[in-house]
Amino acid sequence: MNSDFQVYLKEKTNFFETELKKELEELSYPETIAKGMEYALLNGGKRLRPFLLFTTLELLNQDIQKGVKSAIGIEMIHSYSLVHDDLPALDNDDYRRGKLTTHKVFGEAEAILIGDALLTYAFYMLSEKNLNILSFEQITKIISKTSAYSGINGMIGGQMIDIESENKKINLETLKYIHKHKTGKLIKLPIEIACIIADVSEDKRLVLEEYAELIGLAFQVKDDILDIEGTFEELGKPVGSDDDLHKATYPSILGMEESKKILNETVERAKKIIHNMFGEEKGKILISLADFIRERKS
Amino acid sequence: MNSDFQVYLKEKTNFFETELKKELEELSYPETIAKGMEYALLNGGKRLRPFLLFTTLELLNQDIQKGVKSAIGIEMIHSYSLVHDDLPALDNDDYRRGKLTTHKVFGEAEAILIGDALLTYAFYMLSEKNLNILSFEQITKIISKTSAYSGINGMIGGQMIDIESENKKINLETLKYIHKHKTGKLIKLPIEIACIIADVSEDKRLVLEEYAELIGLAFQVKDDILDIEGTFEELGKPVGSDDDLHKATYPSILGMEESKKILNETVERAKKIIHNMFGEEKGKILISLADFIRERKS
Repeated sequence: MNSDFQVYLKEKTNFFETELKKELEELSYPETIAKGMEYALLNGGKRLRPFLLFTTLELLNQDIQKGVKSAIGIEMIHSYSLVHDDLPALDNDDYRRGKLTTHKVFGEAEAILIGDALLTYAFYMLSEKNLNILSFEQITKIISKTSAYSGINGMIGGQMIDIESENKKINLETLKYIHKHKTGKLIKLPIEIACIIADVSEDKRLVLEEYAELIGLAFQVKDDILDIEGTFEELGKPVGSDDDLHKATYPSILGMEESKKILNETVERAKKIIHNMFGEEKGKILISLADFIRERKS
Repeated sequence: MNSDFQVYLKEKTNFFETELKKELEELSYPETIAKGMEYALLNGGKRLRPFLLFTTLELLNQDIQKGVKSAIGIEMIHSYSLVHDDLPALDNDDYRRGKLTTHKVFGEAEAILIGDALLTYAFYMLSEKNLNILSFEQITKIISKTSAYSGINGMIGGQMIDIESENKKINLETLKYIHKHKTGKLIKLPIEIACIIADVSEDKRLVLEEYAELIGLAFQVKDDILDIEGTFEELGKPVGSDDDLHKATYPSILGMEESKKILNETVERAKKIIHNMFGEEKGKILISLADFIRERKS
């Protein structure tokens, strides 16, 4: 990992955290909801999705200020999905990134409502908060894409099939559907939003969308590998939790060696298409990010 | 209740049901989510919110086709809130309108995701589905208002304080906050959306907003009264369920007589301001609706 990338990542992440905290200061009542939203959002997440939005905007010569409200909106959707996923009726997780999950701190009924509030507020961020930043047309397109990618035909669809596949033997096609929808769509979303904001040309958009799909896949394959090879200290949650729930993963279907091969090929392809379209210098952050996803420890 | 109103109500409700079913036909996979959304939406609801949107549009000389996607969006939000409210961790209700609640039919994890999918799809209805019907500016304003009225500062805020008030003595101020937010905001919303679509003058908008607040209050006071005086057959759910949960209601704080007096005064005031602004003939549907809310049996 080159240190330029690390500095850039840190800078963008810090920028996002500051802007997010400013937004959260506006929320105070009911206290349980306000505190719960804050707790769920300030949980040490990697901020991959905001980072993707900012990086793509800069690659397309846009001010990242144009994407900040949308980045917060996407992170709220990501965050709500974790709060609901962790509930006793779903994955029943007590810890996430080494901290107690939202329902363990605030209660189950509260966590359901906190998740609902995060999802709802995401659309407030994308509409009201973007009013003086983007055009009505851009706002409408962003919301249309966001709602499509997060719902029945996107993230929730993947989540539902994931739950239905527990304790079942599933094939690679089903696993691909799950990954593409459950995590893939919300990784693609910030890149597509950046394209809407930059009003980018078709050829660049297609390359960026392919890149988004590739790193989405790489991210998930790496997640599956880490669930077997990581440590509690690194992951902040018990190792082998996929196995406990008898969830299908790349290693369980294809074996560890083949999974690592897919991870490598996916990352190399992602780097190559960015290199070809934007050049090594201009594309260096997205190129480094692909490496970062392959090499991360948590 | 005059029969003109009954005919009009039936006509608008039938129109809404037909349009809603057409939208639902587009959803098929994952089947559990698609079927669950349908189950939750086609549950014999009164369609008060769509009716308010259509009626206000016609009062303002607009084609109701302009409001149909928004009406479906609002009903999806109303519907998701009932699915989540009924969950074991919240009100733990087995029946709603005489039918098993969504989690009793589909399971608890599924009902959480079905609710999430309804909420998310509502914003898809308001954005993508309104693209060829409304301007980008109208769409943006509608989404901004909808997300504000449904979230922490709206419906969810009311719901949270409602839960926190169970088994506690609360004062009238808190009860008013709960009602104004938990049900009031989503009754106000369709009227305000109609005003955005019609680009109505300030004076008419203010009257319509006051009317919306008044019938929202009347609706809730009547609900509280029905929970004591209704029958299972009429309500489709056990009578006295508020009392079982030790929920504060208008009758429990102010007594039955005073509650009925408030109901009457609120309905009369709502009728009067519409009469004064629009005249008896043009305002007759909103006037009859206020009576309808007072006299309903379920």
